[in-house]
Amino acid sequence: MAAIKAYAATKAKGPLAPFEYEPGPLGSEQVEINVSHCGVCHSDLSMLDSEWGPTNYPLVPGHEVVGTVGAVGSNVKTLKVGQRVGLGWFSGSCMHCKQCMSGDHNLCPTAEQTIWGRHGGFADRVRCKEEWATPLPDGLDPATAGPLFCGGVTVFNPIVQFDVRPTHKVGVIGIGGLGHLALQFLNKWGCDVTAFSSSAGKADEAKKLGAHHVVNSRDDAAMAKLAGQFDFILVTVNVPLNWPAYINALAPKGRLHLVGAVGEPIPIAAFPMIMAQRSLSGSPLGSPVTTATMLDFCTRHKIAPVTEFYPMSKVNDAIEHLRAGKARYRIVLTNDAAA
Amino acid sequence: MAAIKAYAATKAKGPLAPFEYEPGPLGSEQVEINVSHCGVCHSDLSMLDSEWGPTNYPLVPGHEVVGTVGAVGSNVKTLKVGQRVGLGWFSGSCMHCKQCMSGDHNLCPTAEQTIWGRHGGFADRVRCKEEWATPLPDGLDPATAGPLFCGGVTVFNPIVQFDVRPTHKVGVIGIGGLGHLALQFLNKWGCDVTAFSSSAGKADEAKKLGAHHVVNSRDDAAMAKLAGQFDFILVTVNVPLNWPAYINALAPKGRLHLVGAVGEPIPIAAFPMIMAQRSLSGSPLGSPVTTATMLDFCTRHKIAPVTEFYPMSKVNDAIEHLRAGKARYRIVLTNDAAA
Repeated sequence: MAAIKAYAATKAKGPLAPFEYEPGPLGSEQVEINVSHCGVCHSDLSMLDSEWGPTNYPLVPGHEVVGTVGAVGSNVKTLKVGQRVGLGWFSGSCMHCKQCMSGDHNLCPTAEQTIWGRHGGFADRVRCKEEWATPLPDGLDPATAGPLFCGGVTVFNPIVQFDVRPTHKVGVIGIGGLGHLALQFLNKWGCDVTAFSSSAGKADEAKKLGAHHVVNSRDDAAMAKLAGQFDFILVTVNVPLNWPAYINALAPKGRLHLVGAVGEPIPIAAFPMIMAQRSLSGSPLGSPVTTATMLDFCTRHKIAPVTEFYPMSKVNDAIEHLRAGKARYRIVLTNDAAA
Repeated sequence: MAAIKAYAATKAKGPLAPFEYEPGPLGSEQVEINVSHCGVCHSDLSMLDSEWGPTNYPLVPGHEVVGTVGAVGSNVKTLKVGQRVGLGWFSGSCMHCKQCMSGDHNLCPTAEQTIWGRHGGFADRVRCKEEWATPLPDGLDPATAGPLFCGGVTVFNPIVQFDVRPTHKVGVIGIGGLGHLALQFLNKWGCDVTAFSSSAGKADEAKKLGAHHVVNSRDDAAMAKLAGQFDFILVTVNVPLNWPAYINALAPKGRLHLVGAVGEPIPIAAFPMIMAQRSLSGSPLGSPVTTATMLDFCTRHKIAPVTEFYPMSKVNDAIEHLRAGKARYRIVLTNDAAA
């Protein structure tokens, strides 16, 4: 096999530069994807900046891949060369632990992560286990699909896991890379959707994306009026919030759900949880089946990430744009090599 | 009607003394219970000590009542004079809010509480709305049944609400008034049951009550070995715990559930919740239907509170015994008047 041409960082917060590596022989259960597009996710920044424990450099980020299958290992059963697929945060799972055997491959304790101890999708090619390359349905635009494979499934998955219903009143905290997809999903899911934002300027955008109501999360009086209303509130941000106000906004049996990895412990008072039977929970990404279900849902409902495109050769510009908080709402790198 | 003869405290932490009050006309939807037994609960102490906001004195505690129906209001449809019933923390609910209409009367925001702004069961008689006087099944010992109506349903309810299954591995933190009932319930529910206790001396007792395993919660090494094992852990104590160790002990999709109203906020780190899709939740008591279901379950499985008896005239001795942490595991006052 030829060397893989990628972009890598060699130190924390350092720029990415062209980087080649020899992938070795293709594993019998692996596929190789010719990358046409790759989203840029906040988790790429966290890894680039060595925020989640020490990152091994050189690091090739990229875990929101779309491309075509370029090669398949000898035991691959479900994918063919030329097929259009996507790849997200996970690139493999053991397939035989209790979680994998229950369909919860995203909870596999030994799951392989696309950019953790291996190289990701800011490259002309990337590899993964067969199960984690999910075919794109006809009718789904490959150019914008990449962010669905990490940001998308991260917010779609809890809707499925916790049985959010079309009759529910739901909230989304944060209108960004994850939140702008959650608003679209929950709107098409049939829910009554409220967007919580600290940026007054995003209200119109939030409504276009599917919010029926927008609440300024810094307005204490507005927050207090929402007491007891929400069946489900999704936290897509990773900064400390006014937690008591959101717990208070939950209906009896309501759930506050975390997908943003807030750094500081969240102080949860027992009494408001007990008196109204409320829950706090979290979840990571989603299984291959949930990913495929999401892609079908997106295709039927014309849900797509709102994207800005950069050629992969301008990856450093893209990363600076994201780092500056200017991405509206998700950046996709396009691959000249695959074009 | 004759005056009700009760025991009341007139100030915070003060002793109880004989106290009479005129109950006025019986409400059309009320029943009056001739009290034969009344459990003494930690919540009675909290109310006596004015711990939950200012208590109105005089206070007649007592919300684990067993007795016989002595009188029924003109609109009472389901109960008859002479019928044996129990009464717990709630003595009424609106019957028409969304929660009541959904069968979640214990989540009714205007539910009447037996000893909150009214007088409870340390008395010869006590009243409640018809719905909250639950008939005792034949075969259930009335002498020990009282504690089921508060302590019992508090720990039985989450097993029902959160669909704990006989195949689950479960834990109970605290072997006291609530925990000793939770162990019995979960054993008969078919679960693999672990008791967590900081009192080494309670291990044999815990096993007699239904624990298959007992873990010293102060043994960090033993706690660390339990990583990822538990589907459901019930917190029956109201003191700060080693929360990260218990979260870590939860299996993927596991739940840490609170029925003890821990005073200080619980610091919950987001990452361990997210990575294994874990939940933290709370719940208060149970609905009338859940209470009746519990009573049937207790009758079929010969589950009963382990009780110590005091005549109601010795109520101060009983309260001191409980306050000293010596109750094994639940105190019941017996009523000379009704005997």
